[in-house]
Order: sequence, then structure tokens, then C-alpha cells
Amino acid sequence: MASQGFWPFGAEDGGDNSNQNPSAPRAWCQAAQKFTGGLGSKLCALLSVGEGEKTGSPARKQQEAGVESCGCNKPCGCYKSNIDFSVLYSTDLLPASEGEVATLSFLQEVVDILLPYIVQTFDRSTKVIDFRYPNELLQENNWELSDNPETLEDILLNCRTSLKYAIKTGHPRYFNQLSTGLDMVGLAADWLTSTANTNMFTYEIAPVFVLLEHVTLKKMREIIGWPDGKGDGIFSPGGSISNMYAMLVARYKMFPEVKEKGMSAVPRLIAFTSEHSHFSIKKGAAALGIGTDSVVLVKVDERGKMIPSDLERRIIEAKQKGYVPFFVSATAGTTVYGAFDPLIAIADVCRKYKIWMHVDGAWGGSLIMSRKHRWKLNGIDRANSVTWNPHKMMSVPLQCSALLIREEGLMQKCNQMHACYLFQQDKHYDLSYDTGDKALQCGRHVDIFKLWLMWRAKGTIGFEAQIDKCLELSEYLYNKIKNREGYEMIFDGKPQHTNVCFWYIPPSLRYVEDKDERMKRLHKVAPVIKARMMEYGTTMVSYQPQGDKVNFFRMVISNPAASFEDIDFLIEEIERLGQDL
Amino acid sequence: MASQGFWPFGAEDGGDNSNQNPSAPRAWCQAAQKFTGGLGSKLCALLSVGEGEKTGSPARKQQEAGVESCGCNKPCGCYKSNIDFSVLYSTDLLPASEGEVATLSFLQEVVDILLPYIVQTFDRSTKVIDFRYPNELLQENNWELSDNPETLEDILLNCRTSLKYAIKTGHPRYFNQLSTGLDMVGLAADWLTSTANTNMFTYEIAPVFVLLEHVTLKKMREIIGWPDGKGDGIFSPGGSISNMYAMLVARYKMFPEVKEKGMSAVPRLIAFTSEHSHFSIKKGAAALGIGTDSVVLVKVDERGKMIPSDLERRIIEAKQKGYVPFFVSATAGTTVYGAFDPLIAIADVCRKYKIWMHVDGAWGGSLIMSRKHRWKLNGIDRANSVTWNPHKMMSVPLQCSALLIREEGLMQKCNQMHACYLFQQDKHYDLSYDTGDKALQCGRHVDIFKLWLMWRAKGTIGFEAQIDKCLELSEYLYNKIKNREGYEMIFDGKPQHTNVCFWYIPPSLRYVEDKDERMKRLHKVAPVIKARMMEYGTTMVSYQPQGDKVNFFRMVISNPAASFEDIDFLIEEIERLGQDL
Repeated sequence: MASQGFWPFGAEDGGDNSNQNPSAPRAWCQAAQKFTGGLGSKLCALLSVGEGEKTGSPARKQQEAGVESCGCNKPCGCYKSNIDFSVLYSTDLLPASEGEVATLSFLQEVVDILLPYIVQTFDRSTKVIDFRYPNELLQENNWELSDNPETLEDILLNCRTSLKYAIKTGHPRYFNQLSTGLDMVGLAADWLTSTANTNMFTYEIAPVFVLLEHVTLKKMREIIGWPDGKGDGIFSPGGSISNMYAMLVARYKMFPEVKEKGMSAVPRLIAFTSEHSHFSIKKGAAALGIGTDSVVLVKVDERGKMIPSDLERRIIEAKQKGYVPFFVSATAGTTVYGAFDPLIAIADVCRKYKIWMHVDGAWGGSLIMSRKHRWKLNGIDRANSVTWNPHKMMSVPLQCSALLIREEGLMQKCNQMHACYLFQQDKHYDLSYDTGDKALQCGRHVDIFKLWLMWRAKGTIGFEAQIDKCLELSEYLYNKIKNREGYEMIFDGKPQHTNVCFWYIPPSLRYVEDKDERMKRLHKVAPVIKARMMEYGTTMVSYQPQGDKVNFFRMVISNPAASFEDIDFLIEEIERLGQDL
Repeated sequence: MASQGFWPFGAEDGGDNSNQNPSAPRAWCQAAQKFTGGLGSKLCALLSVGEGEKTGSPARKQQEAGVESCGCNKPCGCYKSNIDFSVLYSTDLLPASEGEVATLSFLQEVVDILLPYIVQTFDRSTKVIDFRYPNELLQENNWELSDNPETLEDILLNCRTSLKYAIKTGHPRYFNQLSTGLDMVGLAADWLTSTANTNMFTYEIAPVFVLLEHVTLKKMREIIGWPDGKGDGIFSPGGSISNMYAMLVARYKMFPEVKEKGMSAVPRLIAFTSEHSHFSIKKGAAALGIGTDSVVLVKVDERGKMIPSDLERRIIEAKQKGYVPFFVSATAGTTVYGAFDPLIAIADVCRKYKIWMHVDGAWGGSLIMSRKHRWKLNGIDRANSVTWNPHKMMSVPLQCSALLIREEGLMQKCNQMHACYLFQQDKHYDLSYDTGDKALQCGRHVDIFKLWLMWRAKGTIGFEAQIDKCLELSEYLYNKIKNREGYEMIFDGKPQHTNVCFWYIPPSLRYVEDKDERMKRLHKVAPVIKARMMEYGTTMVSYQPQGDKVNFFRMVISNPAASFEDIDFLIEEIERLGQDL
């Protein structure tokens, strides 16, 4: 099975000249001859009879596995590369001596598994997920790790099986998370990143990627509106870590002695964020030794936006208690409602009380790329730090999260430990490109190349078009359901982001008058519909309760593959799956 | 240029039947017909004349770009897929309507760029790096981001350029970091991971990967020696974060109130680690609000191993001051010397004083996979937590770091915030598989698949063989230079890990008697040789000072591609580049 690839390897002869066998061999010859530096002849030699006779070599194994003469007319006399993976092991791949052919065939075979998956991802006639319960997945397959190796045929089978049960996160009807979509240029960039397999801590071992991070962070700061794009920043493993970094740097800015002395040397610090903000602010405070009790949750209005007067009131309260307000995290695009906190008013409060202003734009920050929607972020240029996750609304493959900081050099001072085995001061190049000591991470994955390459491929206007389209779709959904029978909106008014929050009220519930009874039953509706969606595999959308509101659907759209038709489908599907509840 | 792929797309006809043109088209037809679910016919239809006449469609653009009739005899009447990327943009790729052909061609073209790079990586006749100084890289290329999109041809060119200046981290003569090598199965797994593009926080959206993490962590705990492999753990973005998580959980275990109340509610906590330990312990303490002054650096012996009696002395000292010792981080494989702290003796001290014992095995933990070398980790089963980075000594692509914890449920309690938009309690499956609330991260990259697939492909014995080989090479290096003229070892005795630390003494320095003068000049030798290595691009090895020892080379071997010949080469190269100093 493994040798029946999707691409030419092992393909059956579909041509009119059956003795020529047009599949792999000639492609191999041509391929080999395109290599520079003597590799071409080396590959040809590896494929030739003479070389193949060495006992135990992969070429020999291929002969034993019954490979045929390719009939190729090139002078190199190539063998057919119709490799039998059932007799090969990972030890036959590079760096094994003469492992080139097996390696290229194996990797191509993997690509031949991935390409159809990618095409199917966008095919609305395929399922979003072929759902199995954990015990089913465990029982139906053998996932165990053992002492002995598997053949490459088994490895390819493992790849197929893993994809069979995967969620198609790029499917046009997958609306489950803030990160959806599968961008082809981003994917290509990620494949290249894996192949380059390096680490962002020094210029020495990631020269191009470090420069691209430099260029991209500057561009992002320019877009935020900081003068000349000056400032600092880093790509971190996700928005939660970016938010924690911001809190860490804000604390250091106010009390640099905390780095050596710890929290016991400083007064009680208080952070402020809205009651609808992301849980990472509390997680960060717990980790940093600030404690969740010192995170004050500021009230929001009915649309989920922080109320600046309540922020001010709570700051004054904290100060009266002798505490030190040090950090305000405004949210640009809350997780559930998609609300944008009023940044200008918040900036005024922060200036008045000299508090670090952070903007958590993990979800909504990308709207700054849109001329139509960037007004929602007015005031962001006054922030001291910004979290902005291109892996959400810009569809960059996971993960890609930037933390941007207005003051240059602060991150470095806050986090550096001068490890002299890594950040030697007597290197022969400009050390300002060794950015690793800015982060808490030592090794750091290359998350920049996918964003940079997508930006080159789309231009800023391409991202803008994607974002505008998703917002247009959410407005379409809102208009479609706001007055539709069986729907109730969680809050009134056009969505500011792509979040559309609503209850679906099944027919049996529409005329229940007892409010408690209604709420109790309504709470159970979304989980059942969601479970059915997953079992049918037709679509996926998230739900949750919030505050005193029982379970409701939170629809979000960040996938450029989604269309009006998919929104229509979602509504039909909710009604189909929920009508009997 | 872009249309001249390495694989069949656009390949010239190398066969004997020139009017048949055996390159892409038939491969396309066969390819198309292997799709299930109607995709085959869809692809064929997309390639057909009728469809291509729609104005503005990619197929139409291909016609305009001068594609030829493929001469294929299949009834579908396919067009030649010799796509001209110079007229296509990312918007012509999926999810664009009719974007399948352009997408498959584009991705295959990218793979055709990556495959030769992979083969060259292992070719000793190629450079490890084509080094450019930052200003050269910036001036010789345009990396800027603009408003407007580039063509796919330009994007492919960007890929080629990025790889041209990349470090070949899998090159057999790249010894620069603890993470080296390029594993073919790991790479394949990472390509699949990128394609699946999902997030580890819930079973809902990463069912297979979450299960594989579960299976793999259990296996790792079994190998550590915890009864029945019970316990907990998570894959985190690198060893530094894993170490910080361990410190966080240890603190929570002793003072759970710290989560809400912060560090001001607890006594002064003290962490202990050796003076040769990794800087992440101090970074973690700074971040967690403990402060670097509360990290006590315990003395090491001449081999770099923590001295347990000094640990005990420092614990007693801290207690006498009224501080609370809460965390000991023993290092299994120090960064520079490769030393293994004596775990059994340290475990005894930790038990005596009831202190959390962490083992930072980021670098050396993998030796537990080797029956020959695992004795160096004796006592690890008594640890409360272990950091173990398969991306180092096991050559898993970056990043792959595990934190393992003996007590189940502690991580969850320490970090959870119960975000109800993500970790709904009324889901239809076993919620113990929603592991996201254990971590500080919200979104979490899938780092498990590459390790799991490599383990399946190699078996435990395959990893063991790799590790044993690297240790054998380091012993070979040690034996080769320990008595060789011009070399001085930093410490005596056979290396315990693959770290071999030495000075190269150029001829001009060998008979300098003034000790200060000698040290001063010797300090400058390694940086110059390293700079020359990079400029020639022949090899890379790290150097650093440590304590009172001036700059010395730290050779490490973690790449299974390295051979005795490469060790010989390294010595010759150091002598060639350093003889005139």
C-alpha cells in the first residue's frame, strides 16, 4: 500500500506506451540531474546496478524487494525507484550511506499523503471531523511505543491514520476556535521552517530568521503607530505567554529590584483587566507571584467593553488601600463577545495614574490591518505593550504571537542572564541580533517565517481583504439571525469583531414561560447540538456560558475559506440538529 | 525559473517518445484519479478546456501564460500543469475557487526546493553555512514588507534565498548547539503537524495528538521508573519553560495559597541549583517573583558535579536565616561540561529536608534510553519532576521538551483557571483529555507527533543506538586530543556526556611562560577560530569562558550523522585555522 503513492512513484502506467513506464524512473533521472555539486551523478550512481549489488545497502534491499528495470533511456541506467517501504526502516534513510533515494522517496510519499488531505480540507463534501471518543480511538488503533522499530510502510500508515482522525481546521465550516484556516503560503513556509530546523536565540544559527523577525516587528510597530516603528518585541509561544511577558516587563519597569529580590521586596501590586478579558492575565499573575487576588476585574458594559470610569474607581480604591496599581490590560477583541475596550479613555486613565497600559490584541489586534475597521483600535499607539497574534485573524499557521513593547531595551534588561555559553560578547558580528536573552525561553521555535512569507505573498492589502471579508460574513450572520424565529442575540447591535453570540431556542422551548425552567433547559441545548455536529462531522462552533448567561453559541469567523453559503449552512445545521430538543 | 521544478512538474521530456511528453500531465491524471470522494473528476474538470475559459480563473490565467496541450490520452483531456508562477498570486491558491491545481503545483514546487536542500545537508562537500554579516544580508536582499502582493514566483525565490543563507543544522560537521541533526521521520512528522495545523488545548480539536501525548508521557514516566508510569506532565516550548513550570508547581505544592495571594503571603523561598546549572533556573526565579538572590548556587567539583555536602550546608544556612528551602534543581548533563549531578545523594538530602527535587535533564535526560549510559541518571526515579528535551540528544526537530511530574493532578490545580469558553464541563467526551488548563499557555503547538512517530520508527533501541554512537564519538575525540600537542583539557577524565571541553593552544602560545599573558592571549584564540570556521563555512563548534577559565571550545555531539571522520576533520580544521594565532 505504501508504495502506491499519489504522485508518480509507483503510479500505474496510464500512458499509451506501456513498455516505457512513464512513472517514476525518468522523473528520477531528471531530478537527479538537476542537483548541483555532483549530487546528480551521485544519485544516478546510487541507482545503478553496480552500486546496488553491495550487500545490505538500500539499493540492494530494493532489488531484493523486486524492483524492476526502469526502461529509462538515459545513459545513467537508472533503476526504478518504486521502493518497497515494507522492507525499509528509518535507518535506511539519510544520514545512512546511500540513503538518498530511499529518503527522497519516503518524503515524497509523505507529501503525497498530505496533498490530498489539503485539497479535501477545502472540500465542503468532506467531513470537518471523523469523530471518535477517546476510548474508541485508543481501542481501534495501536498507538503504543515499543522497543523495536516499525517499517517505513507502517510509519506511512501511521501518518494516514493520524490524519484520518484529525480535525480539518482549514475546512470552510470549521468555526470552533479563534484560529482557523489553512493558508497555503503559510503552510509552505512552515514546511521550510521544519526543514531548516533551527533556533531563534542567536543570529549565528538563524541569520535570516532573526533578520526577518527584526523587519517584521518593526513593521508591526509602525502599524501600531509608534514613532518610526521604534521599540522592541519578540515572537512568543502564544498570546498567554505574550501577555505574561508584558506583565513581567511592566513590573520590572516600575520595580527593577524585583528581578533580584523577588516580590517580597516590593509593595503589593495590582493589575486591572476587564471581567471579560482572557484568563491568561490571571494565569500570568498567579505564575509571577502577584496572585490572582491582585487582579482586579473591571466592569464591562452590555457589549462587553471595559467601563473606564469603573477602572478609575478601582484604581483609586487600590491606592487607598496602599496597593500599587502597575498594569492595566485592555482587551482589543474579547474572546467571547469580540468587544474592543475603549483604548483612548483607558490610555487617559493610565496616563493620569502612571500605570503601564497593555493591549491584549491577541484576537482583535489584526483589525489594525484594515482601513475599514482599524478605528476600533484607536488609542493603541498610546499603549506601552501590545499582544498581537497573527495566528488568529491573519490565518498564519499555529503558533505565531507577537509581543510588542514601546520602550527599547526593557525586555533585555528584565530577562537577561548573560549566559556566556550562548551570548558570547566577543563574537565577530553585531550582537544586537542575538535576541535570545530577551525571552524566558532559551531555545525558541522559528515562528516568524510563515508570517513574513505570507505578508510578502499577500501584501498588507491582502491581509486587509481577508479580514474585511470575515467581518462581512459575521455581519451577514448577524443580520440573518437577529430577527429570525428561534434565535436570541446575547447582546444587541452589529458585532465589532467576527464574534456573533446567540442562543438557538428549539421549538419546544419557545413558549416556555417559567424563566428558570427555560434557562435550565436552554443551558443544555448548545452542548447537545455541538455534540451532534461533531458526531455528524458537518461543522463545529463553540459554545459557553458567560456570567449569568446560560450556554450560548459563540460563532467566530477567521477562515478566509468561509463563504455566505457556509453561514447559511451553519444556521440550517443548527436547526436540523436542534429542532427536536 | 519557478516552473522548472525538481519533480515532474515542468520537467523536460527525457524519454524516447517526444510527442507524448511524459512529465507532468499523466502524473496529474493519475494523481487526480487517486482522489476519493469525487475529487478526481473535479480536478480533471478543472484542468479541462471548458472550465479554463472562465475569465479570470486560474486555469484561464494558465492558458494566457502559454500552457500547452499535454497530449495525454486519458478521456479527461487534461491540460499540462506546467504552471507559470510569475502570473499567479497567493489568491489563486486554495481556498480560491478552482485553486486545486495551482495549489498542488505550488506546494510540490516548494517540496522540490526542500528535497535537494535536505540531501545537501548531509553532503560533506557542502558548506555548513554561507555566512553573511547582518548588514550584508540586509543590503544584498530585499526583505521588506509592503502593501502589495508578490507573485508566487517571487515567493518561491524567497524560499530559495532563505535556505541559501540558512545554517545546515543537520550537517555532519555542525556541532554548535545541543540540538543538531535532521531526522527524516521527525521532519516528515513536522510537515504533517503543520498541515494538521491544530492546537493541543483540547481533545476536541486535537484528538489524536492529545492521545499520543498521553501515551508518550506515560512511556517516559515508565522509563524514569515511576511506578506504573503514573504521574503527570506536558510538552512545553523548551527546557527553560519546563524548568520554570517545575519551580511553579513545587511552590504551589508547598504553599497553594500563593496562587491567589502571591509571594507576599508566603515566607522567603529558596531554590538550590549548582553553579554550573542552566541559566533558566535563575530566569524562572526572576519571573516567578522569587528573585535571583533566592537562587543559591551550590558548589561543584572539578568535573562540574554538584557537591551534595555543600547543598546540605547551604540548606541548613538558609533555614537558619528563617528562609524556606523549597526546590532543588539537580542537573543531569550540564550545558558546558556535560556533568551529571549525583542524583541519589541529592535525593537523600531532599528527602531529609522535605524539599522538592527537580532534575533538569534537558540535555542529559535522554541517556536514560541507553542501557550502557543510564546509570549516570541513577536516582532520577526519586525526583518529583524531570525536564527532558527529546529535541536535544534524541534529534527530534525543534521544539520538543517534556516536563514530567510525579504527582498527578498538581499541574492542573496549580495552573487552572477554568476558562469556560474552552474547557466546558458539559462536553460529550472524557474531559480528562482536555489538558490545556495544566499549562500557562493557552494555545499550544503540537510538539508530540514528531517524537511519537520517530519512536515508532526507531523503537527504543533505535534511540539507544543513536545515543550510544554519539557518546562513542565523543570518547574518540577525547582520546584523540587528551595527549595531543597543542591541546589542554578543561577537566580530566573521560566525558560523561558528549561534551568535550578543551583549549587549543596555537604554536606561538605553547611556550609562553607568563601565566597572565598566556591566559589573556588564549582567551582570544577560540573566538578567532570560530569566526574563521563560520567564514569558511566548514564546521561550527561553540566556545565560552566558565568561571576562571578563559574561552575554551565545548564540543558536543548529538547528530547521528556525525562520524569518526568528522571528528578528525574538526581537529584538522581547528589546527588549520588556528596555527598562525
